[in-house]
Amino acid sequence: MLKNHTGIYTDHYELTMAQGYYLSGIHLKEATFDYFFRTNPYSGGFVVFAGLRDLLELLDEFHYSEDDCRYLEYLGFDKNFIEYLRSFRFTGSVFSVNEGETVFPNEPVMRLQGNILELQLIETLLLNILNFESLVATRAARIRLVAGKRMLVDFGLRRAHSMGGIHASRAAIIGGFDKTSNVYCAMKYGLKSTGTMAHSWVQAFGDEYEAFRRFSEIFPDNCTLLADTYDTLKSGIPNAIKVGLEMKNNGRHLFAVRLDSGDLSYLAKKARKQLDEAGLTDVKIFLSNQLDEDVIQSLNEQHTPADGFGVGTSLVTGSPDASLDGVYKLSSFDRQPTLKISDNISKMTLPGIKNLVRFIDKEGNFYADGILLLHEKNLNTIYDAVHPARKSPVSTFKKEFLLSCVMDHGKIVAPEMNPYEIALYVHERLAQLPSEHKRFVNPHLYKVGISRDLLDLRNKLAGIKA
Amino acid sequence: MLKNHTGIYTDHYELTMAQGYYLSGIHLKEATFDYFFRTNPYSGGFVVFAGLRDLLELLDEFHYSEDDCRYLEYLGFDKNFIEYLRSFRFTGSVFSVNEGETVFPNEPVMRLQGNILELQLIETLLLNILNFESLVATRAARIRLVAGKRMLVDFGLRRAHSMGGIHASRAAIIGGFDKTSNVYCAMKYGLKSTGTMAHSWVQAFGDEYEAFRRFSEIFPDNCTLLADTYDTLKSGIPNAIKVGLEMKNNGRHLFAVRLDSGDLSYLAKKARKQLDEAGLTDVKIFLSNQLDEDVIQSLNEQHTPADGFGVGTSLVTGSPDASLDGVYKLSSFDRQPTLKISDNISKMTLPGIKNLVRFIDKEGNFYADGILLLHEKNLNTIYDAVHPARKSPVSTFKKEFLLSCVMDHGKIVAPEMNPYEIALYVHERLAQLPSEHKRFVNPHLYKVGISRDLLDLRNKLAGIKA
Repeated sequence: MLKNHTGIYTDHYELTMAQGYYLSGIHLKEATFDYFFRTNPYSGGFVVFAGLRDLLELLDEFHYSEDDCRYLEYLGFDKNFIEYLRSFRFTGSVFSVNEGETVFPNEPVMRLQGNILELQLIETLLLNILNFESLVATRAARIRLVAGKRMLVDFGLRRAHSMGGIHASRAAIIGGFDKTSNVYCAMKYGLKSTGTMAHSWVQAFGDEYEAFRRFSEIFPDNCTLLADTYDTLKSGIPNAIKVGLEMKNNGRHLFAVRLDSGDLSYLAKKARKQLDEAGLTDVKIFLSNQLDEDVIQSLNEQHTPADGFGVGTSLVTGSPDASLDGVYKLSSFDRQPTLKISDNISKMTLPGIKNLVRFIDKEGNFYADGILLLHEKNLNTIYDAVHPARKSPVSTFKKEFLLSCVMDHGKIVAPEMNPYEIALYVHERLAQLPSEHKRFVNPHLYKVGISRDLLDLRNKLAGIKA
Repeated sequence: MLKNHTGIYTDHYELTMAQGYYLSGIHLKEATFDYFFRTNPYSGGFVVFAGLRDLLELLDEFHYSEDDCRYLEYLGFDKNFIEYLRSFRFTGSVFSVNEGETVFPNEPVMRLQGNILELQLIETLLLNILNFESLVATRAARIRLVAGKRMLVDFGLRRAHSMGGIHASRAAIIGGFDKTSNVYCAMKYGLKSTGTMAHSWVQAFGDEYEAFRRFSEIFPDNCTLLADTYDTLKSGIPNAIKVGLEMKNNGRHLFAVRLDSGDLSYLAKKARKQLDEAGLTDVKIFLSNQLDEDVIQSLNEQHTPADGFGVGTSLVTGSPDASLDGVYKLSSFDRQPTLKISDNISKMTLPGIKNLVRFIDKEGNFYADGILLLHEKNLNTIYDAVHPARKSPVSTFKKEFLLSCVMDHGKIVAPEMNPYEIALYVHERLAQLPSEHKRFVNPHLYKVGISRDLLDLRNKLAGIKA
């Protein structure tokens, strides 16, 4: 669908500006853009950065097909400019935090260097991919925090935003989900897919016991029976028990029952009791229906005997935020630092070619992040960009520089990682984040500061008196 | 990307169940499924149905490629079943309301008839497309209601859910937007695309006046200048005026200025005054930045001199709902009506092969919708499905049957319509909906009732005493 049209899956104005740079003869001048976001979604304290690999592959194949060029001609774009696009390839360099990194507002998560034309053309695609995958991976990670080691399955495809489902399921696995229902995504990214049955299966057989029995014969492995088509406790669970005992007699094993409606805590407790009393103590209970991290936390507080959860809508749509507010801003042009000024100092961008460093305490916990200019090697104090009187000494901490080259002059150099490998990294890094930043209600704000040199440069360019 | 994998862009359990039907030898039995939703998004009073054409085209090309079949083999699916899928094509029939129809909760917006296997396999794809496009078209229509005849442009691609942007922009146009920034979508669907400039353009030139002047030379038609890179009223508007006057002197015309930050109402009023005082009374003011129907309504109340709006995030993500809760339920199998029972009668599905009729008063306004069994020809009274004591006589109203055959045994029979043509229909139909159903705060619930025969059938199958 899109592979042949990567170059025009973009906002019209990127092309307008690219043509403007081209016709002004400044299109090959060096530029630097930063990708960063301003607000943690879900009123949370962190973001899990995702989408890097997909972005790099799209940049790698970014081009203008014959169809695209003909369409741009029809739209009235300049012939010479279109000729330039005909052989256009992205030749810029990308410096990024690792995919799966725990990141925070206002810090450059990614820095791109190249010519102004190529960096402008890719803006929309970059934001489209990174904002969405990071939104979903962050949600998944929050849900993993409350689910502990229990099974988490992405059930979101039917509520995903049409083809957005392709990337949603990948991001769900990165954030910590075990499996997905999305078969295409499983094939594309090497994920584990899984599925049980819908109410229609039970309805088609008319008799619930018959529907369960037949299913258990055809799918004796990992057999999960949906128990709420008619009446969960009076019909669904008793019929599941009947089939579970028959399977046991035949040396088979009923894996789980799934509850998908009603009060899940109440029903799970009653179902657990019925199953246990029938001797089916090892049959698991799997819950679904409008779950999110808050509902699962509430189920935990009520000691709900749940062994796993299927999560759909909230995971793949990121509701209620539904977007990460990531932006992509020019920070240097023609070797000069530049910035967007704003009355609101917190919306002012940070000028210059920058690096990102993380300060880690002796126990291995994240203490703060610092943004500094690329040439700076030492950073002993970080300053709040909005209220610079607030500063923190950081010289005693271990330093980790977070941005590394993942694409070198248009060539992918980052090693390819399976989403499950990235998920391990997500898990490790979130473990290093102190719990006060991970709590759901009013999380403690993680400290992100800037260097003195960067502060001075910003103030000078913005005309702010120190 | 997806064209060759339509068959597996689905939940794993659709394939599991399909195999189960196949191995049980019941896969060719006749079935009927209904598509409906339960809640109007945005706490609103209606939904604009969209996505029909995309769905039909996806059903038309729905198949299993060699790659897909190999993957299903790897997953352990049955060899004979996979062989069946190898030559599978969708041969069902689809009866639908028109694309762009105003529709309401719990009514069958679409009815699908075919064999149980094919209707099961397409469930996820159907929900994925219809839920999303309807969500966005509904948002767009709400924004159009408050924008009146002013220009509305979809700016959402950077916040759309990755490839979900493909369908988002189409749905935005259907709901009433004029143009989109999404070039690929414009090419694919014949939409008008448009774009102005970003802050990076102004920054690249260093000098704002120089950046504006250069832009006006390259793009003298529809030239729109972004006025808030440095200081809107002290720098942006004065520089835009300078360029606007120069254009005027050269027989050209500055089309608009765009304001993208700060208090839009305050800035627009001041900008209008500055422009008017300079004699540029015909230069338009275009606003963007986190707009939605509520913000635009508030701008209206403050008499903001806005000529157009760019709307992004809220439009293409449908936040805070971010999804339409559309479902797809089996209503008959092997010529027998069937339903899913629930403790909550409002979540019980309606059995049987059904039709949908709209009752229209003498002024042409929508009065109520009725759901009836296919064989019923007359409907004089409709009953509330949850509280049947509530009934309404409808015999004096004009009747419009809303479901028509759009796909006949796998062949698309609905005429293809351009999204702008569909938008005209949206506009016409919403004009027939009384305003109390269109207000944003506590809209009056539109009446949807069922026939006596359908009520009796539902009660009989659910074991409810009348």
